[in-house]
Amino acid sequence: MSKLFETLKKIQPRDKTFEAQALDRINHLIKPKGSLGKLEDIAVKLSGIQRDLHPSVKKKAVIVCAGDHKIIEEGVATSSKEITKIQAINMTRGLTGVCALAKHVGAEVIVTDVGIDNEVPYDKIVNKKVKYGADNFVKGPAMSREEAIKALEAGIEVAEKAIASGVQLLATGEMGIGNTTPSSAIVSVIGGLDPSEVTGMGANLPQDKVKHKADVIRKGIEINQPNPTDGLDVLAKVGGLEIGGMAGVMLAGAANRVPVVVDGFISTAAALIATTLNPTVKEYLFASHSSLELGAKKATELLGLNTALDMNMRLGEGTGAVLMFNIIEAATYMNDEMITFEEAGFIVD
Amino acid sequence: MSKLFETLKKIQPRDKTFEAQALDRINHLIKPKGSLGKLEDIAVKLSGIQRDLHPSVKKKAVIVCAGDHKIIEEGVATSSKEITKIQAINMTRGLTGVCALAKHVGAEVIVTDVGIDNEVPYDKIVNKKVKYGADNFVKGPAMSREEAIKALEAGIEVAEKAIASGVQLLATGEMGIGNTTPSSAIVSVIGGLDPSEVTGMGANLPQDKVKHKADVIRKGIEINQPNPTDGLDVLAKVGGLEIGGMAGVMLAGAANRVPVVVDGFISTAAALIATTLNPTVKEYLFASHSSLELGAKKATELLGLNTALDMNMRLGEGTGAVLMFNIIEAATYMNDEMITFEEAGFIVD
Repeated sequence: MSKLFETLKKIQPRDKTFEAQALDRINHLIKPKGSLGKLEDIAVKLSGIQRDLHPSVKKKAVIVCAGDHKIIEEGVATSSKEITKIQAINMTRGLTGVCALAKHVGAEVIVTDVGIDNEVPYDKIVNKKVKYGADNFVKGPAMSREEAIKALEAGIEVAEKAIASGVQLLATGEMGIGNTTPSSAIVSVIGGLDPSEVTGMGANLPQDKVKHKADVIRKGIEINQPNPTDGLDVLAKVGGLEIGGMAGVMLAGAANRVPVVVDGFISTAAALIATTLNPTVKEYLFASHSSLELGAKKATELLGLNTALDMNMRLGEGTGAVLMFNIIEAATYMNDEMITFEEAGFIVD
Repeated sequence: MSKLFETLKKIQPRDKTFEAQALDRINHLIKPKGSLGKLEDIAVKLSGIQRDLHPSVKKKAVIVCAGDHKIIEEGVATSSKEITKIQAINMTRGLTGVCALAKHVGAEVIVTDVGIDNEVPYDKIVNKKVKYGADNFVKGPAMSREEAIKALEAGIEVAEKAIASGVQLLATGEMGIGNTTPSSAIVSVIGGLDPSEVTGMGANLPQDKVKHKADVIRKGIEINQPNPTDGLDVLAKVGGLEIGGMAGVMLAGAANRVPVVVDGFISTAAALIATTLNPTVKEYLFASHSSLELGAKKATELLGLNTALDMNMRLGEGTGAVLMFNIIEAATYMNDEMITFEEAGFIVD
């Protein structure tokens, strides 16, 4: 049985008994009922995931999957593929956005090469390279079905290793010049939306080229005809290697009862792949911020999650998800530090 | 010269030269320009406040002002005044919502009695009691002009003591059964809005009593005729002692170049008092979350600030502001940990 199939089979819903018990206790904490809003929702969900009335997320990691996209030869990005390699290396040195925010919250940054179209040193970058970049999907599929499975399994393996080391809260991040293009394609296919509705500026693409980018995506979809109900088909035909890796991280989180925080637009596209493969994955996902990238809001809606941060961010790398770690951990402090009315010896509603 | 007058006179705008230098450096960090959104805005603002390209907010405190409101005899709240006393004491024991979130972020909780209508122990609660509760403002002013000045000065003194001890980031919190009523009155008067537009459920007031609450507020405003352009007059006639204390904290922050994070609805009402006394105070304020309390959004708009957290919270105590400490501190990590394109040796836009 393949790693992917095994992981998909293992995914079970959250534990609703623990959730009911957690909610009951939260309703009795010394505050007006419901007044801590989404912090309460987060705490209940964590209890259902961890089967614990005092869930803990002390040990945290963001898995940054990196990959390139040959579709940039169509003029859909302003940067060259070299940047993927350089930023992946900078990430191992603690110098990029996600590193700064991860340091603040005490999270590990695990940089993984799923498909960088360059040689990179593997002393600090995890080597899960499936191939040197996803192919240009206006000329055929981005990758074969077998390669898509390998990309998903790359993410599963890295996440399972982190979980085995004690990580209790995961986030997905990415680095890949051009990767808003396959992300828009995925959201467009799975959401049944025209590419123009979900195609944005990515890393500062000039506004007059965004229409061209949407046209490229439309052409790629027409040529490949991905089946919107088959996540593997969508990933292979119009996706990306690092997007497969991120979806794999989500599958592994769900299979091992570890929550996974979704970052911005590209993470959300990966989440749509993961939830198309198995809808129960959604129960283990937390949304983070409402990215400014056009299409992010639509993608989060399709996923059926709601964001907590309104930061006008659109950097990616996992920055929004790592910022969300703060909020999720705060929910565990509400649980652990506050007492109930009964414990305090008085009643208020 | 009175403490209040002295503090108001000391308030100067942020340093725009430092802000320009900070923005220039942030624009060169290794990320697409502008892609960290509000984190960038926060970092720039902090540089202008602290006159430092690497502002620091390591030492943080939330000043919780407590006070009672005799207007609860009109049936505008579900809890008794005893709860103000009990919760103030629970706060000194680390047991309430704001304590839990402050512990997470490493902030001190300074509980201050500005007007609790009860005896409380002053071993851990700061004694700045102006009087035993604000008067019922449907029968006359909530307090005299002199008492309003004392309430503001109470907040100024507590904040200045914290600042003298090295606190670099402040937040305002409150505890006071009935205090959404004077808050709605303040927002209504200063914003020129009918009370029904800004009066909500507070601590779970049944929906059928919310209309009555708005009617009480309307009556109180008619009787007292507060002058919307005179913050002291509004505070004295339809405000509250702890609301004055919170406004005082904001004035002291602005006067001493220390940023102050505004919490939810009641904090926002206090901020409207502070900015009516001196509009430059606004330059030192950070909004935090969009409270679910009806009127909170309107109040934040009147203040001209924008929120970063969308948490469906409405607890008060300073919980939303303390959660925002995480985000503000994250912005300083962006500044301190990321490098520029020049430092990295490559150029991307």
